[in-house]
Amino acid sequence: MTEQGLIIINTGNGKGKTTAALGQALRTAGHGFKVCIIQFIKGAWETGEAKALKAFPDLIEFHVKGSGFTWEEKNLEKVKQAAQEGWKLAQNKIMSNNYDLVILDELTYLIKYQIIKETEVLRLLKKRPGHLHIVITGRNASPGLIKAADLVTEMKEIKHPFSSGIKARKGIEF
Amino acid sequence: MTEQGLIIINTGNGKGKTTAALGQALRTAGHGFKVCIIQFIKGAWETGEAKALKAFPDLIEFHVKGSGFTWEEKNLEKVKQAAQEGWKLAQNKIMSNNYDLVILDELTYLIKYQIIKETEVLRLLKKRPGHLHIVITGRNASPGLIKAADLVTEMKEIKHPFSSGIKARKGIEF
Repeated sequence: MTEQGLIIINTGNGKGKTTAALGQALRTAGHGFKVCIIQFIKGAWETGEAKALKAFPDLIEFHVKGSGFTWEEKNLEKVKQAAQEGWKLAQNKIMSNNYDLVILDELTYLIKYQIIKETEVLRLLKKRPGHLHIVITGRNASPGLIKAADLVTEMKEIKHPFSSGIKARKGIEF
Repeated sequence: MTEQGLIIINTGNGKGKTTAALGQALRTAGHGFKVCIIQFIKGAWETGEAKALKAFPDLIEFHVKGSGFTWEEKNLEKVKQAAQEGWKLAQNKIMSNNYDLVILDELTYLIKYQIIKETEVLRLLKKRPGHLHIVITGRNASPGLIKAADLVTEMKEIKHPFSSGIKARKGIEF
């Protein structure tokens, strides 16, 4: 891709943020371009979704760098460490000039919980290779991130079965 | 699946409605359940996305029944006919009891443009096999459909590059 890369954000309290990013990965690989996905929260990608990525073994790279998001005192350091490792990897991958699309899945939480600074993220977005598309997902995308983005979609929950007492379904919800 | 099936709607003017449905298909197949997808508008699924479905050849079935959505007088009958064929197929698939999830992609347009009646859709949803999950996508989901649904997500466009004059990117937008 030789055009200017886009910054795309999928945010909001509804479903589909990560799944839409998966779709973007498949779409990009379907055109023969290279994709790198970094998942900052463990378990956000479903078995079936991860398997679908294998349809493009030479084009889609997938890294799980997050620990589970638990806030028990004893695990907090582990969470922070995993997130910072992920952020380091993201910097390397973005600056490597090897990809057409880099997906930073659930990155917004790292900013929200002050594990990394918004200014640091904005700086990296700005100095990235010009053709590189970036997709960032997660709730509560920060104002600076939204301002820097070209395309922002809010996935908004209108009605949810849990609120009417129905339990999660295997293969649908988890 | 032996539990009560859910009716899930992805609506709104933003991106990710069809892609989120794709994710649900992959998730369901990833757990070994059977999926049938009927696409009512031609071209809504990307090359890469369609290829990803082939990761599960025995579990995911994919039908393109829609014609392109053109409103030139001479093509209107063709559009209606393709849509009605798709709707007949949907009825057969839903009542066959062969699937765990049926996706009716872009079905809302058929109601909006009065090709099929909302009451007809509601009747089918009600008499479907009890365990069957249904996902319906498309803008402007009608009030009766939303009322019948268990889970509704609105994909809302917050910011779009086209409004600032950037053209569609291959592998990202189309």
